[in-house]
Order: sequence, then C-alpha cells, then structure tokens
Amino acid sequence: MRTLAAMKVVTTTLAVPTRERIEIQDLTDRIAELPGVDEIAHGAVLIHSLHTTTGLVLNEHQDALLHDIATMLQKAVPEDGAYRHNDPAYSDCNRANAWSHLSAIFLGQTLQVPIEQGRLVLGTWQRVLFCELDGPQTRRIYVQVMGV
Amino acid sequence: MRTLAAMKVVTTTLAVPTRERIEIQDLTDRIAELPGVDEIAHGAVLIHSLHTTTGLVLNEHQDALLHDIATMLQKAVPEDGAYRHNDPAYSDCNRANAWSHLSAIFLGQTLQVPIEQGRLVLGTWQRVLFCELDGPQTRRIYVQVMGV
Amino acid sequence: MRTLAAMKVVTTTLAVPTRERIEIQDLTDRIAELPGVDEIAHGAVLIHSLHTTTGLVLNEHQDALLHDIATMLQKAVPEDGAYRHNDPAYSDCNRANAWSHLSAIFLGQTLQVPIEQGRLVLGTWQRVLFCELDGPQTRRIYVQVMGV
Repeated sequence: MRTLAAMKVVTTTLAVPTRERIEIQDLTDRIAELPGVDEIAHGAVLIHSLHTTTGLVLNEHQDALLHDIATMLQKAVPEDGAYRHNDPAYSDCNRANAWSHLSAIFLGQTLQVPIEQGRLVLGTWQRVLFCELDGPQTRRIYVQVMGV
Repeated sequence: MRTLAAMKVVTTTLAVPTRERIEIQDLTDRIAELPGVDEIAHGAVLIHSLHTTTGLVLNEHQDALLHDIATMLQKAVPEDGAYRHNDPAYSDCNRANAWSHLSAIFLGQTLQVPIEQGRLVLGTWQRVLFCELDGPQTRRIYVQVMGV
Repeated sequence: MRTLAAMKVVTTTLAVPTRERIEIQDLTDRIAELPGVDEIAHGAVLIHSLHTTTGLVLNEHQDALLHDIATMLQKAVPEDGAYRHNDPAYSDCNRANAWSHLSAIFLGQTLQVPIEQGRLVLGTWQRVLFCELDGPQTRRIYVQVMGV
C-alpha cells in the first residue's frame, strides 16, 4: 500500500489509576478507541509512559501469564539487592524502590503500534500491557496518534 | 538536514518461516530492499512482529554471538521456572511456552530504524535480528516505511 | 489536539565521547536543544545509537541509581559466562565483549520521545540516559526530529 498525503496528529494523556504495588492493566481497548485513531489510514500510535517506575509491553493478556511476568521480574532483578538508590547514605529517595526503576528499565517505557485503516495492527494474541511497578498510584500515559 | 514535505507510507507484511525452536534470522537485507525504502529521503521503518513469542533486536550478526543470545535468555529467564502459563490448573495454553513469552518481553517486538536517502541508517555492526522463541512456525512481520 | 500539515524532518549525528568502560551519560539537554526541536508543534525525536555495545534508556538521573543500573546488568547478564563471542575457537572478535553486546540487547538501542510545542514530552523524573558498555570510545548517535 502506498500513500502520499499531509500528516494528521492527535494527542491525548490517559490517566491510569492502579490499586496494587505490582499490577498489569490491558490498555488496548482504551487506545484503539482514542480520538483520531479511526481517521488514520496509515500511521502509528506512540504510547509513552511518563514515569520511571512503570513499563509498557506487548504480549498476551492471560491472568496466568501476567502473574508469570511479575515472577520473572523478581528473579531477573532481585528485589533485595544492595542497591544504592535504597540506601540513605547515597540516595535522597525514601521509597526504597530501586527494584521498580530497574524493572522499568528491563521492560521499557514506550511502545509504537502501527495503525492501518483506523485499526491498531496487532497479532491475534498481542495486547498493550501497562505494568505498574511501584503502586498504587495514578499514572499518566501520553499517547500520540500520527499518520495520513 | 531539513525537509518540509508531504508524507509517504508504504506497508508490507513479511513471512518469516523458521525451522528450529530457537532461531535467529538476519532480516536486514529483506527490509533494506522493501518497496518504498528507496523513495524515502528522510524517514524510518517500523518493524513490528505480530507475535507474542518472538523478539526483534538490533545487534551484530555473528554466529558465536547469536548462540550467546540464546544462552543469555535461558539464564536470565529460567526455562524450568514454576510458571502458571504452563500449569493446566491456571492456563488453557498447552504449549508450555511461558519461557517463550517471557523471553519475548525481554527482547521486545518492535524496532524502528531511520532511513536517509533511501538507505537504512545502521552502524557498522548493526543488523536487524529476528528471534524465533517458540518455533518452528511461519511468522509474520508488519513493516511500515514512512517519511518524506 | 489535532493537526493536519506538511511534515518537517531535521537530522543530526551526536558525538558522545566516553571515559570509562561502563558509563551512563544524560543526553536530555543536548537533545532538547537540537536544531529543529523548537519548530515542531507535534512530533517525536528518534534517538538511535549506531553501536552494538551501547544502550539507551529513559529513567531517572540520580548517581545512586546509575550505579545500580550497572550492578543490575552485571547480575542479569553474568560477565564471566562461557560465551562463544569471547572464545577464539568460535569468534574472530578479540575484545572479549560478549557481556557488552548482551547488556546492549537487554537495554535496547533506540528511544522515541514525543515533542509537543517545541519541547520533549517527559515525566518529572524521566531523562534520556546513554549507556556505554564497552568504553572508552567516541560513540555516535543519530537523532531524527520529525513532526508538524
């Protein structure tokens, strides 16, 4: 498919309240229904968490697997490591949330999903999963729909 | 360099057959030769795997290193962990492929490579590496070339 | 916000000299001040390291945390693993830098940060952190500012 045209941009900031310290929410439907998506023939949505202790991943929304993601993070990034960010001798942060920062780096904060004919281009099992790693908090996600 | 112009978009879906359970393929040449790339003066290609058990990374294509990537994934995400996704009490998936999902999250599913004057902007050793993590299967990768 | 307009593109290659084997530099101010950023009402900057042994992450710039990132990488990707990339029987690379490649894959090489009204869209604590993993070297980062 080929297109040559002027570009459209529509931006929104989503509020995402979380209830648990570690929690994964499926944002796919909220993003698919955002203003502007249905006007894009070819483009992409940039989904950008504004935080340093959250992650965004594309994977399957299955409760068992969401539980496994949390388990994996706790193995890959040991929570009780001797982190300077948690040590008052080195850090002015009193949240003791080094694990949350490091897990966020592991997962990444930004996703880009293509749009074609007004719909997100996702495989059968792919969903946009927002990962709270230091909740509960109300989180903000900047979403930019861009295309022709 | 500065450009002000109408945007071009060309999209393609690549079929990538794999032969092994874990396998890394270099897709750089297939992407560099896609229709549309040579018409873009300034832009980018969004390379987006449509699967939840594959990864896409930018790194060197050297057989020894590809072997090390698989070794690293098996250490960072232990394959024999007690994953609920593999447990019929929690999961309706009978592929026992929790490791494949979790390794895919580790690697990421989407890459964006800039294009300048019709060529991918890559460093000397950078190659687009597609990682099959639950093969063999025929995989699909959505590729969107966008720019001016 | 909605916009319909012709696209602007401005590209630059940043030189980033590093002094240590492992070193994290905050590039946020250099990127925010690049030519073109202040002319974009809505768009994004694609920040793309041209190397296979460096990473780019979005997180907090706090000395204690930067130290923890290096510690985490050394745990998640053991430096003394039996990597083929370090073994002359398998590899023609004599830098023994398998760890640097594998940590780079862990972190990712490309970031995309939205731009709104001439400013990078970043949360309070978010900074663009460049991670040298096999220094000291002079590194190059391709930066593409695109938008309307």
